[in-house]
Amino acid sequence: MKSTFGEHIQISLFGESHGAAIGVNINGLAPGIRLDLDFMRAQLDKRKPKGKISTQRREADEFEIVSGYFNGYTTGTPLCIFIRNQSQHSKDYEATKYLMRPSHADYTAFQKYGGFQDYRGGGHFSGRITAPLVAAGAVCLQILKEKGITVATHIAACAGIADEPFGADKADLLRQAEKLNDSYFPTISSRAEQEMVQAIEQAHSSGDSVGGILETAVINMPAGIGEPFFGSVESVLAQLLFSVPAVKGVEFGLGFGFAGLRGSQANDPFVMEGDNVCTVTNHNGGINGGISNGMPVIIRTAVKPTPSIYQPQQTVDVQKRENAQLQIHGRHDPAIIHRARVVVDSMVAIGLVDLFADRYGYMWTAPDGSREERKDVF
Amino acid sequence: MKSTFGEHIQISLFGESHGAAIGVNINGLAPGIRLDLDFMRAQLDKRKPKGKISTQRREADEFEIVSGYFNGYTTGTPLCIFIRNQSQHSKDYEATKYLMRPSHADYTAFQKYGGFQDYRGGGHFSGRITAPLVAAGAVCLQILKEKGITVATHIAACAGIADEPFGADKADLLRQAEKLNDSYFPTISSRAEQEMVQAIEQAHSSGDSVGGILETAVINMPAGIGEPFFGSVESVLAQLLFSVPAVKGVEFGLGFGFAGLRGSQANDPFVMEGDNVCTVTNHNGGINGGISNGMPVIIRTAVKPTPSIYQPQQTVDVQKRENAQLQIHGRHDPAIIHRARVVVDSMVAIGLVDLFADRYGYMWTAPDGSREERKDVF
Amino acid sequence: MKSTFGEHIQISLFGESHGAAIGVNINGLAPGIRLDLDFMRAQLDKRKPKGKISTQRREADEFEIVSGYFNGYTTGTPLCIFIRNQSQHSKDYEATKYLMRPSHADYTAFQKYGGFQDYRGGGHFSGRITAPLVAAGAVCLQILKEKGITVATHIAACAGIADEPFGADKADLLRQAEKLNDSYFPTISSRAEQEMVQAIEQAHSSGDSVGGILETAVINMPAGIGEPFFGSVESVLAQLLFSVPAVKGVEFGLGFGFAGLRGSQANDPFVMEGDNVCTVTNHNGGINGGISNGMPVIIRTAVKPTPSIYQPQQTVDVQKRENAQLQIHGRHDPAIIHRARVVVDSMVAIGLVDLFADRYGYMWTAPDGSREERKDVF
Amino acid sequence: MKSTFGEHIQISLFGESHGAAIGVNINGLAPGIRLDLDFMRAQLDKRKPKGKISTQRREADEFEIVSGYFNGYTTGTPLCIFIRNQSQHSKDYEATKYLMRPSHADYTAFQKYGGFQDYRGGGHFSGRITAPLVAAGAVCLQILKEKGITVATHIAACAGIADEPFGADKADLLRQAEKLNDSYFPTISSRAEQEMVQAIEQAHSSGDSVGGILETAVINMPAGIGEPFFGSVESVLAQLLFSVPAVKGVEFGLGFGFAGLRGSQANDPFVMEGDNVCTVTNHNGGINGGISNGMPVIIRTAVKPTPSIYQPQQTVDVQKRENAQLQIHGRHDPAIIHRARVVVDSMVAIGLVDLFADRYGYMWTAPDGSREERKDVF
Repeated sequence: MKSTFGEHIQISLFGESHGAAIGVNINGLAPGIRLDLDFMRAQLDKRKPKGKISTQRREADEFEIVSGYFNGYTTGTPLCIFIRNQSQHSKDYEATKYLMRPSHADYTAFQKYGGFQDYRGGGHFSGRITAPLVAAGAVCLQILKEKGITVATHIAACAGIADEPFGADKADLLRQAEKLNDSYFPTISSRAEQEMVQAIEQAHSSGDSVGGILETAVINMPAGIGEPFFGSVESVLAQLLFSVPAVKGVEFGLGFGFAGLRGSQANDPFVMEGDNVCTVTNHNGGINGGISNGMPVIIRTAVKPTPSIYQPQQTVDVQKRENAQLQIHGRHDPAIIHRARVVVDSMVAIGLVDLFADRYGYMWTAPDGSREERKDVF
Repeated sequence: MKSTFGEHIQISLFGESHGAAIGVNINGLAPGIRLDLDFMRAQLDKRKPKGKISTQRREADEFEIVSGYFNGYTTGTPLCIFIRNQSQHSKDYEATKYLMRPSHADYTAFQKYGGFQDYRGGGHFSGRITAPLVAAGAVCLQILKEKGITVATHIAACAGIADEPFGADKADLLRQAEKLNDSYFPTISSRAEQEMVQAIEQAHSSGDSVGGILETAVINMPAGIGEPFFGSVESVLAQLLFSVPAVKGVEFGLGFGFAGLRGSQANDPFVMEGDNVCTVTNHNGGINGGISNGMPVIIRTAVKPTPSIYQPQQTVDVQKRENAQLQIHGRHDPAIIHRARVVVDSMVAIGLVDLFADRYGYMWTAPDGSREERKDVF
Repeated sequence: MKSTFGEHIQISLFGESHGAAIGVNINGLAPGIRLDLDFMRAQLDKRKPKGKISTQRREADEFEIVSGYFNGYTTGTPLCIFIRNQSQHSKDYEATKYLMRPSHADYTAFQKYGGFQDYRGGGHFSGRITAPLVAAGAVCLQILKEKGITVATHIAACAGIADEPFGADKADLLRQAEKLNDSYFPTISSRAEQEMVQAIEQAHSSGDSVGGILETAVINMPAGIGEPFFGSVESVLAQLLFSVPAVKGVEFGLGFGFAGLRGSQANDPFVMEGDNVCTVTNHNGGINGGISNGMPVIIRTAVKPTPSIYQPQQTVDVQKRENAQLQIHGRHDPAIIHRARVVVDSMVAIGLVDLFADRYGYMWTAPDGSREERKDVF
Repeated sequence: MKSTFGEHIQISLFGESHGAAIGVNINGLAPGIRLDLDFMRAQLDKRKPKGKISTQRREADEFEIVSGYFNGYTTGTPLCIFIRNQSQHSKDYEATKYLMRPSHADYTAFQKYGGFQDYRGGGHFSGRITAPLVAAGAVCLQILKEKGITVATHIAACAGIADEPFGADKADLLRQAEKLNDSYFPTISSRAEQEMVQAIEQAHSSGDSVGGILETAVINMPAGIGEPFFGSVESVLAQLLFSVPAVKGVEFGLGFGFAGLRGSQANDPFVMEGDNVCTVTNHNGGINGGISNGMPVIIRTAVKPTPSIYQPQQTVDVQKRENAQLQIHGRHDPAIIHRARVVVDSMVAIGLVDLFADRYGYMWTAPDGSREERKDVF
């Protein structure tokens, strides 16, 4: 718990927005994984703010793997990914440190940490801490990819505008996934993208922000992964997704849409497809009884509007214990939904890899035959 | 993971629907808790099927505390709650054991356990395993109650019919909570109850089932509980709630409703209320940055329609590896939303007690001054 | 922690000496293990008091597997082993409940649990709680056996009398192991057995008790199991062995004997034996850097004399807060070293199976090819 | 497990001897601990090689706290301590990388990691990784000190030479502890120190190394800490101590000395000392039934002779799969017992703080009244 997740592949986060460094220690990876550093950089790039729809603050996010990596392969001992923070405008936060930003973690951190927290830029609560999560996620996504499993997410809704749905057909889905994973603003429909971007810019120009929904598909997920209770695929992924700042809802398959249906409408009939068991529909989002059934895992994640807005807000001063007005300055995101996408993909990958390792052991995380390669290496 | 939850107060489940016994081992309770056995029985009673809206199957659920309980108090060593199953009609399941019931865990269990699973009545996946969870939850609810914290749930929606919302005012909320906790079919509006019950009976008469949404409030929750990431209140409660059979969505505060709002609409302004910091609205459902802010925690849980329906369904025979028709017989619930309520309350209490124990230690679970009582006891 | 151990194969203990029942919930076993119930009974039999060298108290220890076991195989869901206690002479403990038995857990339990503990017969601290550990250990020993791994223990010393050492040759060692595992009082030398038994009887006749040292060998342990730090084979086994009541020392290989040696005497040179890498000596007890090296794992465990003696002892009355004399009555063991043997074997097996499951996943715990059998089962 | 320890205060290690950096992430400390950086440096200094009795290799070990530390206090979020390695003579290891150093982890690492491990200087198995453990231990020792608890260790034996024993009287013990904690080569008797140092130098001059025994006392340990089984004080400390490279035995109180005693000799009678319950003797080393009894906790740890010796040794070449001779060059320690001392103190402190946090919550780790200070800080 706390800033540590995982039973088999365990990640341990550290860092604050304006501290010396942020990073993650990953424990339990197999030896012999040839890390794709370009992919890691590309994933971190998707998290970076770009264009008018993001904050104008620029983050380098250059990571260094300081341990667990030797001669181009993981060693099997802890892999620590380290990102040094660049000098930040820390003084900006002094003037308003007693003014609790609404819907941020300022007040709850104050209650929990009693004033000792690093209040600059949200400290350990900052979205910035998702950078090491994305780096760790990139490792896990690479592991899944080597097993033939694809994870992809689109912006299903943003600022009230809906994207087209995922294709029902697996071939379609794979095509969409490829395109989404290459996009910075991932939608299935180009028209939706344009409208969403426009809506974000409008919100920005009125000093406001917008929220949205991310929909994720895990394609070629084998059946039989997950547990009946606390280690259900839903439980594990939801625990991770609710760790992403601004996430306030998670559903699988039809999710809340199930509430109004009857069993006869909601159930997914089974059918043989050649030698394979499939379901005709996929209302359950690829999960029955907490365990994957071989159909695509479908997850929807609700992201609230960025709480940092430029309009004056009512709040309290915790030092003076009185009401106050807050006017946020600085550079903030009018939307984070597009940047949150890669964090969601990362969280899903981290959770699934841990579940796979439970069943098959941590050695599963290395590609098949990797042990044979050691002759060249050693 | 697996069938074990908790870092400080740890519960370990066991049992199958038609096995010899079901139960739960609770590790980490403080000594000196005077268990309210009547409350435990009353909670288990809420989970029992009753009336036409539930299965006609009758379950005794008489529990025995076989350890960790001495002279009317917890001892501080593992508390094992044991429920012996009564003789069940196990043969009913032989005829259809190769026919995978749609949207049940039959097929995924078959994939995971390779045919060795106890397939009778869903085995370890059965809703029946929630009985020990309710017993454990009753202990945790009692602990919270002694700290002044109330948990209550209403059926916010069922079969497309909506209940009235929770009151915004705390006094209202407490009144509603009391009434809900005394009801077998908990709604705020009596009219909603009537319409929902009618809709369930209709579904039942057409061999069908319905789903719904449960909304839970945690009242008098102190600020400062939870963690920034994987131990956020949302993460912990969602992990637990997604362990409840049939749950497919979880949201906090406005949840998915945030997606269409702007930050200026969504943010909860802070205000002093006497000496206390409150929020004017509670869109974030009492949680900021994963940590409780002192406002009521508001959770919504989507429950899918019971997958057991009497209409013929398309499925596969996993032995013959061919398509098949399935006609379910026996006694099944046309709705479980009302029975799931007490499971949700239990899960919420289990999660919160574990989070409190992290901050204050397991000794917190005993009532203040309990150590003084030992003179009478020992 | 607390009464729960294991990351992959997790055991959760419950029960008190004079409570309703004792037992263990085992989480994480693979489906498809055909449990050898006779072996489980035989192992529990080794733990039972017999003859003049043990207490005259008789324990039935008839266990019931109440979950996770179906049609003769494990199901893959929690396996709960349940042992109902028979009616005990609980009143015997009332008279002396305020008198802390020296070197027992009475006083520390009083401090920790504040008087709420079940003080009858040691409660949860009782050696009786090792019965479910032995049952769980029998399952783990069976799993190891199916992989060709043998665990065996002899009484290396008792009451100052030394047994002969383990053979250096693997064939010898396997022969000794077989004989030891068939004995109730396991020594390599028959003469040592006679002398030890005689010494125990002498201690008994003077109302006293004796201690000893158990030496355990794990034969055919493959290389590469364990972790560099906190999951080292030594760390994991020591954590478990120090959980056995009365154990006060644990060493591997030469252990404390290393202290007086030089590196040139202590190091184990490597040598090729055919295609295999072996060590010429085995001073390190089969473990280098926390990881098994393929040589027999050698563990020595110090067991203190049973603290229950019949001679009058000085103690305190915690109610009156004054010095007192204690005269223990009832039936007690003049030695537990022979009964502790099977607990040590069980702990070693539990620890090793968890370490194997880390590397190979929980599915490793099922015998190879077990998945093929399901056609007969299902 | 793996390189992570702790349930409440969790440490996660990373790094290799010749990699870019080593460090530790500490999760779960309370906010408001004013870290004593000088003490941390002094502790690291005790671990450094000095004089003729240690390797001539010089290590800087300058640490940087990169997170969880703000304005001179812990923040309550993960505290990451980071030590950048200085450029090392990595090439030295190329020539002998296929030659397994006897009694080192080379061969077991090769088996476990399949050739992908960082073989330079022992990689993650290196004693160098104990530097971050000492840094984490210094934080925990400071926490214990603020609660009035003292930890101190002497070299009870080295190269066959015995030190004087700890004093039986608490005042004596505290005096000894103070002196030991100020020494680089900690013995109670100055004569023993001289003889030991001489013996180490003799071993060094003949290209050999020596082992020894460390004896640790925890003074003013309150009663009631620890658990009956897997979280017993002995279990937790042994798990940690066996994680220290070269440790092969751990005992508490009389430890293996119990084996030859009778119960009447071994039991510790209780006695009132004023209002306090004490034991007349302390054979059990301050622990009964796994739980502290208020007497000093006494731990003895066996350290094997450094395996790196300059004499030619028989070994195998794992590439050629044939026997070989190994001649170690470079700079190595003829003894590590004096350097291991601070690692043992650190491990003991880490284990105890985790056990205290279980009972009292992580907030216990902050000094009393620290919350009051926030007004100055925030």
